[in-house]
Amino acid sequence: MPLRLDSAAPDFERRFAELLASKREASQEVGDTVAGIIADVRARGDEAVAELTNKFDKAGVTPDTLRFSEDEIASAAARVSAEVREALQTAHDRIKSHHERQKPKDDLYTDALGVTLGSRWTPIDAVGIYVPGGLASYPSSVLMNAVPAKVAGVERIAMVVPTPNGQLASAILCAAQIAGVTEIYRIGGAQAVAALAYGTASIARVDKIMGPGNAYVAAAKRQVFGQVGIDLIAGPSEVLVIADRSANPAWVAADLIAQAEHGGGAQSILVTTEEALADTVDAEVDRQLSLLPKQSIAREGWEEFGAIITVDTLETATILANRIASEHVELAVDDPQALMVGIRHAGAIFLGHHTPEAIGDYVGGSNHVLPTARSARFASGLGVLDFVKRTSILGCTPSSLSALAGAAVTIAEVEALDGHGRSISIRLNR
Amino acid sequence: MPLRLDSAAPDFERRFAELLASKREASQEVGDTVAGIIADVRARGDEAVAELTNKFDKAGVTPDTLRFSEDEIASAAARVSAEVREALQTAHDRIKSHHERQKPKDDLYTDALGVTLGSRWTPIDAVGIYVPGGLASYPSSVLMNAVPAKVAGVERIAMVVPTPNGQLASAILCAAQIAGVTEIYRIGGAQAVAALAYGTASIARVDKIMGPGNAYVAAAKRQVFGQVGIDLIAGPSEVLVIADRSANPAWVAADLIAQAEHGGGAQSILVTTEEALADTVDAEVDRQLSLLPKQSIAREGWEEFGAIITVDTLETATILANRIASEHVELAVDDPQALMVGIRHAGAIFLGHHTPEAIGDYVGGSNHVLPTARSARFASGLGVLDFVKRTSILGCTPSSLSALAGAAVTIAEVEALDGHGRSISIRLNR
Repeated sequence: MPLRLDSAAPDFERRFAELLASKREASQEVGDTVAGIIADVRARGDEAVAELTNKFDKAGVTPDTLRFSEDEIASAAARVSAEVREALQTAHDRIKSHHERQKPKDDLYTDALGVTLGSRWTPIDAVGIYVPGGLASYPSSVLMNAVPAKVAGVERIAMVVPTPNGQLASAILCAAQIAGVTEIYRIGGAQAVAALAYGTASIARVDKIMGPGNAYVAAAKRQVFGQVGIDLIAGPSEVLVIADRSANPAWVAADLIAQAEHGGGAQSILVTTEEALADTVDAEVDRQLSLLPKQSIAREGWEEFGAIITVDTLETATILANRIASEHVELAVDDPQALMVGIRHAGAIFLGHHTPEAIGDYVGGSNHVLPTARSARFASGLGVLDFVKRTSILGCTPSSLSALAGAAVTIAEVEALDGHGRSISIRLNR
Repeated sequence: MPLRLDSAAPDFERRFAELLASKREASQEVGDTVAGIIADVRARGDEAVAELTNKFDKAGVTPDTLRFSEDEIASAAARVSAEVREALQTAHDRIKSHHERQKPKDDLYTDALGVTLGSRWTPIDAVGIYVPGGLASYPSSVLMNAVPAKVAGVERIAMVVPTPNGQLASAILCAAQIAGVTEIYRIGGAQAVAALAYGTASIARVDKIMGPGNAYVAAAKRQVFGQVGIDLIAGPSEVLVIADRSANPAWVAADLIAQAEHGGGAQSILVTTEEALADTVDAEVDRQLSLLPKQSIAREGWEEFGAIITVDTLETATILANRIASEHVELAVDDPQALMVGIRHAGAIFLGHHTPEAIGDYVGGSNHVLPTARSARFASGLGVLDFVKRTSILGCTPSSLSALAGAAVTIAEVEALDGHGRSISIRLNR
């Protein structure tokens, strides 16, 4: 049974706080194992990578076959049906055109004193993209990471994907081909992260590593942070549906199930002003789950982590939504544009009855890599900004330096940094 | 003696690689101590914070006196001279007007299919700013963190600053007053970070923690990351000066000294096309050091971590600069605008002979919190973007959903996520 709360109940605050604080991931203590793997890859390079890949993935690789050849990529991509290729191409094109709008602009200007100031953006030289293989095969993930990198102007994209027992879904390589990714290694786990961060004879090091992975991958990313940049550590996926009486209970139920089927702690929450809708959705989730081919993961997720919360007004729903700060917020209400204004903390907002979250996972155009575990309070989804960096520009003329020198030297004195003050005063004509 | 390299020497590549790889910070293993402190603050709240503050800082506080009163702030600020207040006000105003230009714009639009798409930016609700007390007192740091937060629209700024033996430089509170920061606690170390991240009875939790600190503070920030956001972990400061024959050796020497006087592993590197200039600067650093009131830190830093590299051309200098990816890059050359184009990896670039790096530390207007330890390859300096987050917006109409449904359902099938596909197809009229 999903949790059922009523915001008017006397124990609501306590039970809602418990919901917010609940852990949905088993924290695995893998730090020491990962540290050992990273040290091994740093010491022995490709040999270590190949050995660990054969040990964990039974992939049957040698240092010479870590990388997919052009032929291997082309022939795998050719095995994908025309329908799938077209769908991935549609997704690619829409993601690309949306992300093109995110490219930041340089801003160089001269102020009233004659000081040149500005911000200049440049792409990161080389990024690594981690793509999970194994149980889950998500070609959409390849696009969501590679397309913003390409749009940003990243010159080198190195993709890693484990191939357990030598197997890999062809659609992964097809998505890479569509995105223009040509450097792909059949490696995964902490050893892949270490190879990307420190480099080996056959894999040049990158500057930043993106993409989701299991507990070992997440720990490895934390450990190499500083040596390279990393993206957010992704947690279990989550959706919050806010529904009023205009909502279609069957559609809401389908969206709650779609989130729950990710498993691994994925969470679906419904907040509604309608007690009757809450009951209908609850029953409808049960009914639709029984029709789903592989229902066990979704059912377990819904029963363990799902929640239905009834509230008096949409204002209360908004307050709760901002406290939950969900990765995905669906507004299944009559006037989603009006409700959206108050939702300040959300990875993505889906407007109205005809925008199931799943459309954003694939072909909406926005990115599906979004902040989880309440981090939408302070973090944004993946975008072009994650693949560029800004350099500040400052330039003084003799006269603008003179105009600023007094204040700067005064602050240098307060901070007891005499050398700072002298580097300014030595340049002044006296 | 600083390291002296010549890019034409046969052993250059090896020695340059050693320079790049050299560690300038003693890595202190403080993780377990910090974990204990965080657990204590989470368990006992203000009591633990006060106890630890008295133990480490001899600050003589109780849970009731953790926060500076309005009167305490006002009377401390009033003790600051008019000259210092004006200098800080000038710095504040220039930082503010530069950062105003960094505010990102929302982008909401409807595409050809009728899909509503967009990015909406909102400020973070509450940020914590860590300000070092003790040995170093840097009011400029208060401004560099607080002003972008204010510009971003952050509603609550909680500042923490340790007061060893109950002492605090008045200029710190004056800078806070100028920046409009009113919530200030006399606490520091891992206990301050824990209080900001998890909250206590008297200190409400924040969403993101910014600002530099010692090894304990850095470790605490790493450990609370996820619960809250954090900024970059700051390493020792560094400057790279590129000089041609137009450079003034005394000015270049003053800038190398200004960086070295930060101590703690700070690094100054000169890359020049002129062998004679290299010699003159080397001698000039010695001469100016002997005139500096507190020369020991700067001299030790220069001799241990300083380097002078001679190169054949400015093109070679550019290549080395991009490999070094320094926090600060000064272009002490005849045509800095032309040289700037090729410098892709730098926290900030300072143009020409009249732009000492120190002017950017205080009153240039750009931010002095910049990526160190070669992280300019993938990271940017502090700015307004660090205090806001982006929410993606997606909205389909019945007809645009129909147009996108086929591709989305196809990808859902490839990814074996039936519930995703069904949440889309259930909405289609058939």
